[in-house]
Amino acid sequence: MALDKLLEKIVYSQNPTVAGLDPRIEYVPPFLRDKAYKKYGANLKGAAKALLSFNTALIDALCDVVPAVKLQAAYYELLGYHGVKTLKKTIDYAKSKGLYVITDGKRNDIGATMEAYASAHLGSVDISGHHVGDNSDLEPIILSPFDADALTVNPYLGKDGIKPLFSVCKQEDKGIFVLVKTSNPSSGDLQDIVTADGRKVYEIIGDYCENEWGPQAPGKYGYSGVGAVVGATYPEQLAELRARLPRTFFLIPGYGAQGGTAADISLAYDKNGLGGIVNNSRGIMCAWQKSTDLNAERNFAVLAREEALRMRDDLIRHIGVISLPGRTF
Amino acid sequence: MALDKLLEKIVYSQNPTVAGLDPRIEYVPPFLRDKAYKKYGANLKGAAKALLSFNTALIDALCDVVPAVKLQAAYYELLGYHGVKTLKKTIDYAKSKGLYVITDGKRNDIGATMEAYASAHLGSVDISGHHVGDNSDLEPIILSPFDADALTVNPYLGKDGIKPLFSVCKQEDKGIFVLVKTSNPSSGDLQDIVTADGRKVYEIIGDYCENEWGPQAPGKYGYSGVGAVVGATYPEQLAELRARLPRTFFLIPGYGAQGGTAADISLAYDKNGLGGIVNNSRGIMCAWQKSTDLNAERNFAVLAREEALRMRDDLIRHIGVISLPGRTF
Repeated sequence: MALDKLLEKIVYSQNPTVAGLDPRIEYVPPFLRDKAYKKYGANLKGAAKALLSFNTALIDALCDVVPAVKLQAAYYELLGYHGVKTLKKTIDYAKSKGLYVITDGKRNDIGATMEAYASAHLGSVDISGHHVGDNSDLEPIILSPFDADALTVNPYLGKDGIKPLFSVCKQEDKGIFVLVKTSNPSSGDLQDIVTADGRKVYEIIGDYCENEWGPQAPGKYGYSGVGAVVGATYPEQLAELRARLPRTFFLIPGYGAQGGTAADISLAYDKNGLGGIVNNSRGIMCAWQKSTDLNAERNFAVLAREEALRMRDDLIRHIGVISLPGRTF
Repeated sequence: MALDKLLEKIVYSQNPTVAGLDPRIEYVPPFLRDKAYKKYGANLKGAAKALLSFNTALIDALCDVVPAVKLQAAYYELLGYHGVKTLKKTIDYAKSKGLYVITDGKRNDIGATMEAYASAHLGSVDISGHHVGDNSDLEPIILSPFDADALTVNPYLGKDGIKPLFSVCKQEDKGIFVLVKTSNPSSGDLQDIVTADGRKVYEIIGDYCENEWGPQAPGKYGYSGVGAVVGATYPEQLAELRARLPRTFFLIPGYGAQGGTAADISLAYDKNGLGGIVNNSRGIMCAWQKSTDLNAERNFAVLAREEALRMRDDLIRHIGVISLPGRTF
């Protein structure tokens, strides 16, 4: 379990951007939507198929620019099980194009149930019916339900909501990102509460990532397999947490529309230009809706690529060349 | 938005139990599993179909005994999108049998994304492509992706992870349960932390439910539409929270296998015998695996019903007759 593969892809592409594929049907160019509705009906299935065409075209346009995509589970669930099928098909397609795939599910539950989430999204399940202590001669039938590379998780249930991830991922190069300080305006309601020992709640969760969970999943390049979600909209906390959590890699939402700038974000980076991956969803997906290009709708993928290149250059201007300690590509 | 419908069903059935349908393939009697694998293949689809047969038989056996079922999303996601289809089919079937359906997803995200989760699981989505501020003449196409009655949610992201639920649910009789004090051994890692003002984290979240969120969704019977998850495994906190949160209805996991008893749970109940609904998943689903009945496998549904009746009697012995203030059934 580690984020090494992600770091390698970031260095190879010289781009610490993750393209967020959080598609709503309103973001899909009408010609694609109409085509899917004509073929499958104007229903949840048709809408899910429209998202899939949108996603695959975006992946084709972005796969040599960005190292990773992040799929927000909510927008797939919004189209019911048809949408969840599109989630899986998108994961498979993105991986076939060499992209690292983060499922943004913010999942969290008690031990045995968290194990099911970990198996579902990152690991595998044995559907033979065999269970521990069972003497039957059932042959295992091992299948991978979603098979993403990393999953975002919520820490509200404490350690035993995180631990099952280690066992599920231990033989695979997979990682997690724990919510520490999120990018939304009210993130402070709980996360900024000062506790009796003087630490804020988000600092306590950050310390768990750095000192308790991370060391159980060490990585080759100085960062563990237990990353942290830290919003670009709180630059002070970003700088503070980088100093406090030197072995914890960040997933950084909040660039662009939410207000985070490349200068803010650069506070999270170390001398090798490593430290985090920055998400951009709507800026890339909806570039065509803001364009003055007369043919913007048809050119949505090219416009998404241009926005991704612009963002890469913006970030790299502040971060510099990215390298892996002791390794060059 | 309220939990009134749930309270009415509890009083009608004189049973504050929610049957947890958290099925793993190991819990499904082999004859049902084999039948599904023969028809659909020994793959994720076959396993998902086996769960659906299991669930529908359990629902048939339980629908006149329990008022509600709780579906743990993790166990459906564990079978990929086929499993998520079984989640939807189970919701529909349970509702057709008059049961109240709680999706236990523990979802949480920032504003716009939480709105998507709320729409997905409780509300509806417009797939026409129309969006606010758009002048197009697209006719709305409104569909309900999952359409459960209530959803469990995680409070880590603060107010704006909860607020979107109000707007999505406001015109429907739907509710939420916010994680306050969960039943797992490590729930205290974060939830029990004492803050600078002397309150513990779970008390702060409980206070939000009672004083900020609940009043926005008042109910007819003294309990709001914003419930709280409080584990039976922490009876002291259960009693403390009942006194502290008089208008907040509880979803109580941890009965049976996890160690919570009916006597512990009765601390959460008011003079009308109201106060919470108690979950039992494995005890009911897997009753056949513990039975000495020679035909236990074939009789799984009858044995589940017997366990549900036993649990009802156990709870009612401690809680007494349940009534709605000012209303009798």
